[in-house]
Amino acid sequence: MPADLEPTTGIAGAGAVLRLVRHGAATTRGDLVNTTGLARSTISQRVDALLSRRLLVAEADAASTGGRPAQVLTFNRDAGYVLAGDLGATHARLAVTDLAGEILAEEAHDIAIADGPEAVMAWLEAAFERLASAVPEGGGTLLGIGVGLPGPVEYASGVPIAPPIMPGWDGFPVARRLRERFGAPTLVDNDANLMALGERTRAWPDTEHLMFVKVGTGIGAGLISHGRPLRGAQGSAGDIGHIHVRDHDDVLCRCGNRGCLEAVAGGRALAAALNAAGIEVRSTHDVVRRFREGLPEVTSMIREAGRQLGEVLAASVNAFNPAVIVIGGDLAEADEPLLAGVREVVYQRAVPLGTRSLRIVPSTLRDRAGVVGAAIMAIEHVLEPDAVDRMLAGS
Amino acid sequence: MPADLEPTTGIAGAGAVLRLVRHGAATTRGDLVNTTGLARSTISQRVDALLSRRLLVAEADAASTGGRPAQVLTFNRDAGYVLAGDLGATHARLAVTDLAGEILAEEAHDIAIADGPEAVMAWLEAAFERLASAVPEGGGTLLGIGVGLPGPVEYASGVPIAPPIMPGWDGFPVARRLRERFGAPTLVDNDANLMALGERTRAWPDTEHLMFVKVGTGIGAGLISHGRPLRGAQGSAGDIGHIHVRDHDDVLCRCGNRGCLEAVAGGRALAAALNAAGIEVRSTHDVVRRFREGLPEVTSMIREAGRQLGEVLAASVNAFNPAVIVIGGDLAEADEPLLAGVREVVYQRAVPLGTRSLRIVPSTLRDRAGVVGAAIMAIEHVLEPDAVDRMLAGS
Repeated sequence: MPADLEPTTGIAGAGAVLRLVRHGAATTRGDLVNTTGLARSTISQRVDALLSRRLLVAEADAASTGGRPAQVLTFNRDAGYVLAGDLGATHARLAVTDLAGEILAEEAHDIAIADGPEAVMAWLEAAFERLASAVPEGGGTLLGIGVGLPGPVEYASGVPIAPPIMPGWDGFPVARRLRERFGAPTLVDNDANLMALGERTRAWPDTEHLMFVKVGTGIGAGLISHGRPLRGAQGSAGDIGHIHVRDHDDVLCRCGNRGCLEAVAGGRALAAALNAAGIEVRSTHDVVRRFREGLPEVTSMIREAGRQLGEVLAASVNAFNPAVIVIGGDLAEADEPLLAGVREVVYQRAVPLGTRSLRIVPSTLRDRAGVVGAAIMAIEHVLEPDAVDRMLAGS
Repeated sequence: MPADLEPTTGIAGAGAVLRLVRHGAATTRGDLVNTTGLARSTISQRVDALLSRRLLVAEADAASTGGRPAQVLTFNRDAGYVLAGDLGATHARLAVTDLAGEILAEEAHDIAIADGPEAVMAWLEAAFERLASAVPEGGGTLLGIGVGLPGPVEYASGVPIAPPIMPGWDGFPVARRLRERFGAPTLVDNDANLMALGERTRAWPDTEHLMFVKVGTGIGAGLISHGRPLRGAQGSAGDIGHIHVRDHDDVLCRCGNRGCLEAVAGGRALAAALNAAGIEVRSTHDVVRRFREGLPEVTSMIREAGRQLGEVLAASVNAFNPAVIVIGGDLAEADEPLLAGVREVVYQRAVPLGTRSLRIVPSTLRDRAGVVGAAIMAIEHVLEPDAVDRMLAGS
């Protein structure tokens, strides 16, 4: 049964009232009565519960003239905070945000995800402790945690499943461990899904169908469909890095298959090819640095990687018909040759209806897309109507 | 703003009340008061409007004991009817259904979509007239029309856009013409999208992420994501027939590109290959007939087509992570070799998380999937809460 068909009598409907105020559909008790058709007494009961939990704040309407001024209700973004982390293969970006997803404090670190879950999780927990202590006085309590990982994640359980670049993490209960450690609802997702969510929320709020492509050491994508993340049946949607590309069956991928997109066009593949050509690089960052130095062979190699990516994105345009494709990730710092290669193939190979209004653009949030998306994922989860009702019932 | 945040006061909320009864969330006025939190007088006003339009019927509850028995409210599937058509390249299936999508009368015909829109639309209108006259006494009025076409359709306008196998149809206002002719809301969609909707509604109602692949003269797909059709930004999602497959750049597709999936593995391609091998066939049906005669070269050719399709479906599994892939269309009448080829490649090439619980199955509705989906599309459109409110305001 859709959520909006659920019973909404009594205090149990306070979450739905909060949503109306958060989305700007109502700013006074009178608005809420008009919008919902509920009795004024019912609305007052729910608003009072939200005020006492400080999820709403009320102030007299200065614009009101004559009689008793109506109270204006506002969502209180400082009623609590969330912890957010975007863990990549070699870097991590962490933040604590208010309930509007605004960053209150943040950290960036080099890490090695391949050190395994015990080492990385212990480090992450300590870093989250530090960040939580940076929340200003009056910032409320920890309401939720969101984490992105660089591999396939079963979203419902928050567990990575057979992640190719995360040795030791297969089946590790990431969400459960953080939930037990911090006593807050914790969601874990693939990093590209979170980049899609962050970029869409901040840069493309009116776009219903968006694809975010992360081109870093590996390649992955996140899809937004009908305005919400499309994770698929097990949460592996968007895993385009292991799609078979043409004429590269000689290339072995770290997943065990041959000719995967990321084994041909990912940052790791480019670094290996440059090293083989006598141009010393150690990371995707180094590849971008060499590009910025103006080495023509690096530029043409990145453009060719864009073409390979473009083959897969042309197929994705046919299959999914996004309005916008956002290209992010470390290699996208060299966005000119990368996007040129992508556009060349997509506009030639995808169906006309799919490319007629398609935009292919670089990321706006750049290396913050994932951590912002992780915060938004946590916030939307803890503020959904049912969760708010449970929060109020428990407090 | 989401539809459920819209104002719902007064008679304007009758559509939402109808939805609660249709979905089984409420069967009496008392249920509706409890479920919505609305005043009994408000509920009565809305129920009365629905009763007078015959969208609901009320009868005394036989199981009730003592006092005045509560009236049981039921959705009246005979309050109106819809016309549905599934037009293929060479056949059409038409039906008139009640508001539960149950077929009241149907017709199947050989057609030639390539005769162009004037000839085909005139024929379709005459056939719809015949079908409408077959609705039994008491079946209400025509409430909507749904039509599927074998090519890309801009869903919002109901206009085919550059459809490769429909000469003369590019930009033809199919939906507008039927709406003006019959005076009823008309929706037009790609046939594979409607097959996905029909198959999901009838055979996989609890599956949130489903992909329907139509393998006929051409190849197309329809996606269900979060339980609803995923049409994408322009309505071209699922157009997988023109994805570039490997090692076939010598094959020219009717879309003008080279190496498209349907130019290699569609029924038309198989028929051409069989003719070239001296086995005379004229259609996809003939290919299936030859397969049933036991010709081993036909079986192995269909299995190889399944492998080519499997390459594209493996990529689709990585990108979209469906729980179920349903294979339908004329060539899927030879489902054993076709599905064997598909499964061979998908389970080898797609990511483990995507195939762990994946089911690849033949269509249950077979050649009725599209027309059932067309009826369901029309019904869901005319019975959505806002549309019901408008219907009641106008009557």
